[in-house]
Amino acid sequence: MKIAALGPEGTFSHELAVKISGDSEVVLFPTIKRVFAEAEKGECFGLVPVENSDAGGVGETLDGLMDTGCRIAAEYYMPIRHNLASDGVPAGGCRVLYAHPQSHAQCSRFIEDLGIPVIHTASNADSARLALQNPGSCAVTSVSAAKNFMLDIIRPDIQNSDNNITRFLLISPDKGEYPGGISEVRKTVSASGRRKCSIIIDPETDRPGLLYNILGVFAGEKINLTRIESRPSKRGIGSYVFFIDFEAESGEKLISSLKRIATVKELGCYVMEEV
Amino acid sequence: MKIAALGPEGTFSHELAVKISGDSEVVLFPTIKRVFAEAEKGECFGLVPVENSDAGGVGETLDGLMDTGCRIAAEYYMPIRHNLASDGVPAGGCRVLYAHPQSHAQCSRFIEDLGIPVIHTASNADSARLALQNPGSCAVTSVSAAKNFMLDIIRPDIQNSDNNITRFLLISPDKGEYPGGISEVRKTVSASGRRKCSIIIDPETDRPGLLYNILGVFAGEKINLTRIESRPSKRGIGSYVFFIDFEAESGEKLISSLKRIATVKELGCYVMEEV
Repeated sequence: MKIAALGPEGTFSHELAVKISGDSEVVLFPTIKRVFAEAEKGECFGLVPVENSDAGGVGETLDGLMDTGCRIAAEYYMPIRHNLASDGVPAGGCRVLYAHPQSHAQCSRFIEDLGIPVIHTASNADSARLALQNPGSCAVTSVSAAKNFMLDIIRPDIQNSDNNITRFLLISPDKGEYPGGISEVRKTVSASGRRKCSIIIDPETDRPGLLYNILGVFAGEKINLTRIESRPSKRGIGSYVFFIDFEAESGEKLISSLKRIATVKELGCYVMEEV
Repeated sequence: MKIAALGPEGTFSHELAVKISGDSEVVLFPTIKRVFAEAEKGECFGLVPVENSDAGGVGETLDGLMDTGCRIAAEYYMPIRHNLASDGVPAGGCRVLYAHPQSHAQCSRFIEDLGIPVIHTASNADSARLALQNPGSCAVTSVSAAKNFMLDIIRPDIQNSDNNITRFLLISPDKGEYPGGISEVRKTVSASGRRKCSIIIDPETDRPGLLYNILGVFAGEKINLTRIESRPSKRGIGSYVFFIDFEAESGEKLISSLKRIATVKELGCYVMEEV
């Protein structure tokens, strides 16, 4: 089964898709929204970034999980390394810098010291392409995108944190059985035997203590939340939904308790990868 | 006292800064980070967008509240209207679209139907400038930026939701007394007499039920959370801090209870504006 990922060639999504695809074909799309749309048709998996340890949640992916019928089949962690690259321009000679907004946020310290104008781009690969096309410019980009556009890496590892990791999700509209072709998906338990489940909770009404009652259901069953992230419900400012990941085999009992106090969208249970 | 805001001329930040500044001077900076740095010196207020009802929290502002000594003096809500604008190109004739990533997210439905390549820019004003400079192109921009660059508005109100609102914060390193010059800041109670406080909670260690215990302190005092937003702690993936706003006069008793179980950074209490 094919994997749809965010392109163009040389993005971190593309790099990871190639790594996990085995013999499967990787197809690239220009937006995360398109990746969700392709995966929703059921003819391929989708691979999407969901959170970065430095820059936080990826809004387009959270919206895709909220708005489409896609569920989570697997998770992956990918260490992120950013580089300053150019076509023969030394670091001191860069007059303008191309950077994706997320990459900019993740390399903000280095970029600030550089002190040159930054132009935002749609992807790290686009940054590399623009640096090749515009004399005197440089790009923040991945090793693989620099290589694709034959740029020199003039400063490696310019990210703020050496601990910079992005978590990716493999998505599919299926309800639990994954037809294989991707070896990692076939696993049903991790090395540690742990699994996690993801849900979206929509409190719908806002009253003091409601989120407390929701978390009380987890505390009552001694279930560990591995992540909680709020997002606008899009019903108006001050109204939120919560993306929650928790460690559990199936979460069945917990979810039925939660459904008594709020609307729950189940995103699936899957192997918990070690970071 | 001057107000520092995100420029260039024609951004929503600039528009709001002019509206609230009275006789004060408005100075524009190219990044939110620079606005925080200026405000931290204590010689001006800073005006920064903190959340949008459609696109969610503004990472750079949340990071500024986490990393600098700035506190919140006031909040403002601003309805956001996006427009398709061009220099004489009709909507059907746009071959490329300039858009800020947040504006893109807020107008994603209209832009998708348009079906043309999108180039991301650093601000709505930059989008307008680029549409003026590049024949056959269009921009997603505000009325005020379109006017500054003498573009025609060819489709008004292209945002996904007519309820699109951005919340802004007025920041300053001061500890409670605001020297005036900005009429709104002088108010100590809103029309409804309500005030809110903002804090950042860093649980530091992760154990099952910790967030539940934290929210229990609010529930115990029947204090209503108006917002909770998680952000990476930047100590590694899976580690978060929480931005919490709650309705209270001073929050003193609540905050001292919270400090017994987690690290709390106080961001100040201020007049709660009606949306």
